[in-house]
Amino acid sequence: MEEYRIDDLQIANLFLKQDPNLFCFGTDAVLLANFASKFIKPESAVIDLGCGNGIIPVLLTAKCKSANINGLEINPQCVKLARENVVLNNLQNRIKIFSGDIKSPPEEIKPSTFDVVISNPPYIQHKDGAKNNNEHIACAKHEVFCTLKDVINCADKLLKCGGVFAMIHRTQRLSEVICLMHEYKIEPKEIIMIHPNKNKKSNLFLIKGLKGGGVWCDVLPPVYIYDENGNYTSQVKDIYEIDK
Amino acid sequence: MEEYRIDDLQIANLFLKQDPNLFCFGTDAVLLANFASKFIKPESAVIDLGCGNGIIPVLLTAKCKSANINGLEINPQCVKLARENVVLNNLQNRIKIFSGDIKSPPEEIKPSTFDVVISNPPYIQHKDGAKNNNEHIACAKHEVFCTLKDVINCADKLLKCGGVFAMIHRTQRLSEVICLMHEYKIEPKEIIMIHPNKNKKSNLFLIKGLKGGGVWCDVLPPVYIYDENGNYTSQVKDIYEIDK
Repeated sequence: MEEYRIDDLQIANLFLKQDPNLFCFGTDAVLLANFASKFIKPESAVIDLGCGNGIIPVLLTAKCKSANINGLEINPQCVKLARENVVLNNLQNRIKIFSGDIKSPPEEIKPSTFDVVISNPPYIQHKDGAKNNNEHIACAKHEVFCTLKDVINCADKLLKCGGVFAMIHRTQRLSEVICLMHEYKIEPKEIIMIHPNKNKKSNLFLIKGLKGGGVWCDVLPPVYIYDENGNYTSQVKDIYEIDK
Repeated sequence: MEEYRIDDLQIANLFLKQDPNLFCFGTDAVLLANFASKFIKPESAVIDLGCGNGIIPVLLTAKCKSANINGLEINPQCVKLARENVVLNNLQNRIKIFSGDIKSPPEEIKPSTFDVVISNPPYIQHKDGAKNNNEHIACAKHEVFCTLKDVINCADKLLKCGGVFAMIHRTQRLSEVICLMHEYKIEPKEIIMIHPNKNKKSNLFLIKGLKGGGVWCDVLPPVYIYDENGNYTSQVKDIYEIDK
């Protein structure tokens, strides 16, 4: 039996159909879409690697003017849902969803043609931690279909020289992310640390890399998700409500 | 003509003789000494690479119990001043200052014997930026005598397996620092971003590496130096006054 829910994204009258048996989007996707949108120009070609139900491409349509937003996803059920979400929001003229593996993208996705590559990849190494019994959710959280290296390797192949890679990842893997990006000459240029609140260590970070960039990097003021009363901070409210 | 000044360090009745013609210590040294002291046990063997006028070894005596604190410095005038500062504070039984080059340390400094290696190295690459006309100050700020790689290479040689490397550096060089530490298998384990205030990007960061450690890393809550009125924050006051 299919069980869906439809969520109001609270931005630009967008909605998202989600299947609770698949991975449902979280704050991470909203933070990443907001971060990445800063680097997208109206003429930019954009692709989201591992787009799941399409949350990031859909959110991006509200935050940038590009009509060349693409998503690549390996899980056929997610591909179906992402395509339904494009239609649900009448965004067929701005978003294309491709079915395929980032390790060998379909032919329509040409190397060295993208201005911005985005990814909210699985955070957990294949060998680490107990997996979710639901295989779809396990694949979204664990590096079952692709490793961090596969994601950065794919970004390197798809980006034009001077193109931007934007990713969110777990802070525990910060040094691994930086070293791999450096290895593929996608130099880290901008980092934003995300902390649950101002007294806690960072759990996530946003990173912008520049293909062929020089080695220097900015760390912007951090984002705190909750204030001392456990409510969203004004930073997070601004991100959620930016296009209201 | 010699012109010296003697500064009260406001901690544990310590004083520091400084020569305004040489490099004088700043907030960086205080932040680093405070950070590094958390990793020093009473029995730890500690060395500060490029100790200048001895500010970090002197501050450490107030913040930890080790009686095996060493400093290595290449500039003979700084070595003389650092030794005078040890005597001025009657710390001959806890601090030894060595004259020599981190690229080929003197024989008394044995490889693989240190628990904690500390460095507040020159921040600026040799090729970058206008140099100070005073050659002593230029050498403290620019990589004239040693590069970042030399510092990390020396730390690698001197540290025991499982030993800690603690450094402060410019945030613009964050990814370079992380990649070099990873290359020398001194894995980044703890990072604290330092921001001039809460609205500005980070200018400095503190980093702890563990020789032979696994690849994962914590980013602790950031330190802001000034509040909205331009006064030191309580975080910084705590660091300065920690042992009062």
